[in-house]
Amino acid sequence: MKAVILLSGGLDSSTILYKAQADGCECHTISFDYQQRHRRELQSALTVAQKAGIVKHQVVNFDLRQWGGSALTDDAIDLPQERSLHEMSQNIPVTYVPARNTIFLSFALGYAEAIAAERVYIGVNALDYSGYPDCRPDYIQAMQEVFRLGTKQGREGEPINIVVPLINLKKTEIIQLGNQLGVPWELTWSCYANGDVACGVCDSCGLRLAAFAELGLVDPLAYAS
Amino acid sequence: MKAVILLSGGLDSSTILYKAQADGCECHTISFDYQQRHRRELQSALTVAQKAGIVKHQVVNFDLRQWGGSALTDDAIDLPQERSLHEMSQNIPVTYVPARNTIFLSFALGYAEAIAAERVYIGVNALDYSGYPDCRPDYIQAMQEVFRLGTKQGREGEPINIVVPLINLKKTEIIQLGNQLGVPWELTWSCYANGDVACGVCDSCGLRLAAFAELGLVDPLAYAS
Repeated sequence: MKAVILLSGGLDSSTILYKAQADGCECHTISFDYQQRHRRELQSALTVAQKAGIVKHQVVNFDLRQWGGSALTDDAIDLPQERSLHEMSQNIPVTYVPARNTIFLSFALGYAEAIAAERVYIGVNALDYSGYPDCRPDYIQAMQEVFRLGTKQGREGEPINIVVPLINLKKTEIIQLGNQLGVPWELTWSCYANGDVACGVCDSCGLRLAAFAELGLVDPLAYAS
Repeated sequence: MKAVILLSGGLDSSTILYKAQADGCECHTISFDYQQRHRRELQSALTVAQKAGIVKHQVVNFDLRQWGGSALTDDAIDLPQERSLHEMSQNIPVTYVPARNTIFLSFALGYAEAIAAERVYIGVNALDYSGYPDCRPDYIQAMQEVFRLGTKQGREGEPINIVVPLINLKKTEIIQLGNQLGVPWELTWSCYANGDVACGVCDSCGLRLAAFAELGLVDPLAYAS
């Protein structure tokens, strides 16, 4: 069974790649260079894909700085730092990128249909405090309808299915799953800042470090602070 | 009221741009350079946008030849030529590009949210014999749900609305509407082939010429045959 895996190179997407392989899928990974602040993640995505031994890795290039609207695509908007999990849970954060998962899933859908894949895996997670609207189950259900109605494959045969193995897992549970699957955490990249080593203080680093700490584990990735 | 208009430079999208202006919208146009065979249309989109006097024109660049799957994105797949309207109505044609309108609408959604627009206009048309799955009303309805659930604007306030003024019009009725609105047909581009003048024999030219002829009108665009 062919599958397209949305791979950012982070903890979540690396875990779903290994999950898809464990599910018996022939994996085609897709990453997006949208001129994000943390383009460093693209290098990690490639390394993780190579380590996992996937069939083909695609990078799609476009520029979401054309209109910005997010701390990840506009350098004039500062990254939030050293926020508590409670603070993160209050609002949709400035790291929200307008329509990002919709754009990502649309390209994955096109790629999946072109190669006659049956599944698209995405590592969204409704419980990670982020508040992103495009990570919630009702949104994924709406995209599934688009997958069914917006393609030749969905109209004439079986629709391509969106698979979301992490949607109801806590970050600690994702790490436990990844440990079972052998995900190479040291090759992944979660940090939103644009440094050579992970900053340790942005929301993404904060969530990750808190989850490793809660499990009594050490994150093997190097951190600046 | 701000609106984002998907403008390919063709007959349908040029008509909806003029319709959006007649509706009182401040228009932001968006075109896509996806390495389509008929990239000539991008020049027409710009010219039409300038003629209409819009606020801003964006071109988003990406490459759908990375996986192909369509006569418009893979030169190894021949364009259909000189087909009757009946032949065109039989199947989803090889000019169908996997997930194209989903990709286009996703970018339009991101742009619309970033500039706080209230509407996205798209010139889809369910009756033009094309059979494209991503031009039908149930598909647009599914995308509207994505617009509502997948954005901050949709979750916290009023969702951005997809407006489809042409969805139930015949091509002849679109031309009549465009004539009322003063659409400059001579600046538009519908041809799928990659020539300096429109080929006159591809499906897109065929539909357009048949509609002008049915109305007893002359298409002011130059044709090779």
